Amino acid sequence: MTHVQHTGEIGCLKVSSKSPPASVAGAIAGMIKDGVAVDIQAVGAGAVNQAVKAIAISRGFLSPIGIEIVCVPSFADIVIDGEFRTAIRFAVEPRDAAAAAQVSAGAAAQETPVE
Amino acid sequence: MTHVQHTGEIGCLKVSSKSPPASVAGAIAGMIKDGVAVDIQAVGAGAVNQAVKAIAISRGFLSPIGIEIVCVPSFADIVIDGEFRTAIRFAVEPRDAAAAAQVSAGAAAQETPVE
Repeated sequence: MTHVQHTGEIGCLKVSSKSPPASVAGAIAGMIKDGVAVDIQAVGAGAVNQAVKAIAISRGFLSPIGIEIVCVPSFADIVIDGEFRTAIRFAVEPRDAAAAAQVSAGAAAQETPVE
Repeated sequence: MTHVQHTGEIGCLKVSSKSPPASVAGAIAGMIKDGVAVDIQAVGAGAVNQAVKAIAISRGFLSPIGIEIVCVPSFADIVIDGEFRTAIRFAVEPRDAAAAAQVSAGAAAQETPVE
């Protein structure tokens, strides 16, 4: 399995209803491969739909090189042209990011020095 | 952290553009708490949007009891009224399902009997 080292960076992508999902998918895959977590922001049903399609497509780019991604959707209050809107934000990250953290915590616990 | 034991069951939810996200969120949270993986199917931008909102809301139900969920979107070819449509399917599962598998594999490796 390819291990993706998070650099701690977060790339932000704003997706609209007119964003081509394949292009957005390419951007997601590129960032994830570089160890950059991706935050995708979408406002409105059309934009959310394009964002989800992009994530689904990017799985197809990343899966063959051993990277499985997951996404976590949340609400975000934003201001567009002076108006309050609710955006959907998708945090996209490698599936084993959480697993790796737990595994290394476990390994650390067992590395207690034996004197 | 609450550990969710997967029962191996998968609950399927079909979400439409008219599905109330809070109700769907309650259904998702209930199944996840019962250790049932959830597959959500949505056809069309309106339905996908409601599904995403439902997943975001269900995070608010599960997070206080120590369960973090992630979702994995994919495409699915389905037939509705004799016509081929492309649905979006969201696999919703606890975040630590993958982590737990890796941790227990690691733990097993260290449980080599010392004679």
